Amino acid sequence: MSQASIKDIEIDIVIGALHSDLTSFMNEWRPVFSRFHLIIVKDPNLKEELQIPEGFNLDIFTKSDIDQVVGTSAALHFSGYSCRYFGYLISRKKYVISIDDDCIPARDNKGVLVDAVAQHISNLTTPATPFFFNTLYDPYRKGADFVRGYPFSLRSGVTCALSCGLWLNLADHDAPTQALKPMLRNSRYVDAVMTVPARALMPVSGINIGFDREVVGPALFPGLRLAGEGKVRWETVEDIWCGMCVKVVCDHLGLGVKSGLPYVWRKEGGDPIESLRKEWEGVKLMEEVVPFFQSVRLPRSAVTAEECVVEMAATVKERLGPLDPVFARAAEAMVEWVKLWKILGAGSSSTRVQET
Amino acid sequence: MSQASIKDIEIDIVIGALHSDLTSFMNEWRPVFSRFHLIIVKDPNLKEELQIPEGFNLDIFTKSDIDQVVGTSAALHFSGYSCRYFGYLISRKKYVISIDDDCIPARDNKGVLVDAVAQHISNLTTPATPFFFNTLYDPYRKGADFVRGYPFSLRSGVTCALSCGLWLNLADHDAPTQALKPMLRNSRYVDAVMTVPARALMPVSGINIGFDREVVGPALFPGLRLAGEGKVRWETVEDIWCGMCVKVVCDHLGLGVKSGLPYVWRKEGGDPIESLRKEWEGVKLMEEVVPFFQSVRLPRSAVTAEECVVEMAATVKERLGPLDPVFARAAEAMVEWVKLWKILGAGSSSTRVQET
Repeated sequence: MSQASIKDIEIDIVIGALHSDLTSFMNEWRPVFSRFHLIIVKDPNLKEELQIPEGFNLDIFTKSDIDQVVGTSAALHFSGYSCRYFGYLISRKKYVISIDDDCIPARDNKGVLVDAVAQHISNLTTPATPFFFNTLYDPYRKGADFVRGYPFSLRSGVTCALSCGLWLNLADHDAPTQALKPMLRNSRYVDAVMTVPARALMPVSGINIGFDREVVGPALFPGLRLAGEGKVRWETVEDIWCGMCVKVVCDHLGLGVKSGLPYVWRKEGGDPIESLRKEWEGVKLMEEVVPFFQSVRLPRSAVTAEECVVEMAATVKERLGPLDPVFARAAEAMVEWVKLWKILGAGSSSTRVQET
Repeated sequence: MSQASIKDIEIDIVIGALHSDLTSFMNEWRPVFSRFHLIIVKDPNLKEELQIPEGFNLDIFTKSDIDQVVGTSAALHFSGYSCRYFGYLISRKKYVISIDDDCIPARDNKGVLVDAVAQHISNLTTPATPFFFNTLYDPYRKGADFVRGYPFSLRSGVTCALSCGLWLNLADHDAPTQALKPMLRNSRYVDAVMTVPARALMPVSGINIGFDREVVGPALFPGLRLAGEGKVRWETVEDIWCGMCVKVVCDHLGLGVKSGLPYVWRKEGGDPIESLRKEWEGVKLMEEVVPFFQSVRLPRSAVTAEECVVEMAATVKERLGPLDPVFARAAEAMVEWVKLWKILGAGSSSTRVQET
């Protein structure tokens, strides 16, 4: 597999710290994380001092860093789960892996510890196949190949820009599902990675992802912020929103998105019943959001993720803005994010897709 | 799961007999097949008498039955792997399951015998979700659900019309892949079923499938026949061709196609090197076929599978016909198949999608 050619210094692990005591989190991840540079962004609302064990190569960023770098933006918010996006912005690496701080490494069906970073990098450095479905899953995996009938002209695939991992134990369900099925746990480890086909939309979860920051970093931003958003995952949709956006961008630019491995083990959360009232806002919004992203088309002139996001922001403002003020604010955040990215995010590497 | 409500008498198992001695095949499948009615269609080119063990409820059809029922058709051929389509035509059941006669039941990761019929029927009787991708695979499976961000309005799903199973041991590769990697065997049992998203094309393999005959039976026909087609799977593309056709029909009619479980264990095949010369014909044709099916659109007036296939045949004739005579013949076979289906295939059940 080609990830052997990726150097550890080309990777940043970005952790949004919503909990002050990261001791057990970091120790659980030590076998996986210790080789890499970590960016830890402390939720600006978090009052307590961070507790982080020794032995890691890391930089910590807090509210004062965010204020200093970003300034006071009316549209962009880096609080709660969104603090990680500050890490995406200031990273200078080609690849970013981000995992929620309530997740620990999973074990596969044989009981072996899953190296989530290695799997994300493997997903990102082997081609994706969005233009035709391979029934035997990832054709680039050892022991696998394309099946009969798969066109040879499509077998070289395209660059994979986004790798979406999954969750054992507490899966990423919304508050109504959690409330309805409080005992529901995911125990099925499906040993597969697949490319999500072009033009198929999906709910990207920010809990466990890896992406090519040079190529699609500008499309991973904190855009849609719910009024009643709190500190549990099922109250947020910011990752779902930018997930739709990044999928549309990838389809437009001819890039791939993969889903499946790696799994992480997600620990127990809060009280879903309490969140129910708030969550319905997100649930209701999705009914507008999905048809929008299914029908949005980007102009041929948009050839970078920045350009795509700016175009998309204009269409969001025009078509969704009148429906709910939350969408107008999202459009504003997207424009502001791209401005910031051009100044801060682009770093020394080129972000032109053609050159990657 | 809703398959409990499906009676065994609503199901036909259709086996195309390419080998005369089915003793071991039938005995291996006895625990799975014995409750069901079987339709065995003998390859008209097969000279030897069929050997079939006792204790099954079955009907056998041979060349003389085909000649009597179909007559002498210039366009439709039921020889070799295509003999099974005669069984699809004369079945009167709602569901058809078809498995190649060189496959035996697989075992899952725990060593338990896979009941391929039960799994196909489960796939067909639970909804499909072609309009949005669920990252945790089949949301209707016990212990599973939709993930956060999945629109509630799409959670009821649509009728699943086609269930595509997979293969352990000898996977369904083409001759060049077999020749290049003679030792390649599939040993990975991926415990998942997923809906292939709308507008994503896929290579449907006829080795191990189940389908709702009332709804999409007319779209499963022996259409594309290669000049040098022989008696090994990797020399045929008839299933790949009608698989593209049935996927386009399903997308048009708002029906679902699933892929994944059940697996069957596929025994060793012939000599791929010998087939290489012939297979390239199929490989070359796919380069024309895939862009065609990716772009073909059916008129709104086509509301049944029959009508869709007739429309598609006209477009095949017009757009692909000039490229290669094999496509003109395929178009002719499609028209003839629908004519036959209206007389013989429709049986007593309605084929209107609206009424299912």
